Amino acid sequence: MVEASGCDPGILKDANALKKILIESAKVGEMDVRSTYFYKFSPYGVSGMVIVSGSHISIHTWPEKGYAAIDVYTCDVDSKPEKTIDYILEKIGASYAHITEIERGIEDEDGTYTHIILSWDEAPQED
Amino acid sequence: MVEASGCDPGILKDANALKKILIESAKVGEMDVRSTYFYKFSPYGVSGMVIVSGSHISIHTWPEKGYAAIDVYTCDVDSKPEKTIDYILEKIGASYAHITEIERGIEDEDGTYTHIILSWDEAPQED
Repeated sequence: MVEASGCDPGILKDANALKKILIESAKVGEMDVRSTYFYKFSPYGVSGMVIVSGSHISIHTWPEKGYAAIDVYTCDVDSKPEKTIDYILEKIGASYAHITEIERGIEDEDGTYTHIILSWDEAPQED
Repeated sequence: MVEASGCDPGILKDANALKKILIESAKVGEMDVRSTYFYKFSPYGVSGMVIVSGSHISIHTWPEKGYAAIDVYTCDVDSKPEKTIDYILEKIGASYAHITEIERGIEDEDGTYTHIILSWDEAPQED
């Protein structure tokens, strides 16, 4: 789950550009695209979803704030969600990202399932 | 984000039943369904996605473990994601759920965006 700040407003408004970026990001992360769904909502934002085998990538954008909420969910241990996220952040021109990784379906001692949460920050455009 | 344990394996295998449950859960949460995408994967599991106006609900199931990973993402402050989750947990017969709420797009003092994380447990069938 990524909060991306300082992004290019022109890209965040452009549903077609975002669709291309998310499809390519799935390939970069070694995921197999099944279906896509994108739409613009008023006044500016775009919501987009790429459905991958057992997984999904979504983006919801606020161009007027240079902000995008990105989620990458994957069930596939062979995929590379970090590469997917890095690709998206680069292409939308994010200057800063707050990222939380949630490892799902961790079996507890009592047989119930929980998750493990890890958060960090990145400044992709400052490299 | 929900890890649901002790669920009914028969329901977790049944893509049609899960589709009905997720569509109804969107209505219960006052969300407006735009599109759905469900498929079974081998040997047992189901992946399902309901795309809502500015939001989405997804489920990925492991019937052999009685386990389901559920996500409800909403941009709409008028929707009721807690009701959506409670409805799904009841219908899939979950005995236990570990839930993490992530409030997205919180503006920090330096103008970047972050999120706030809150986790709790529920035992829906023990009430």
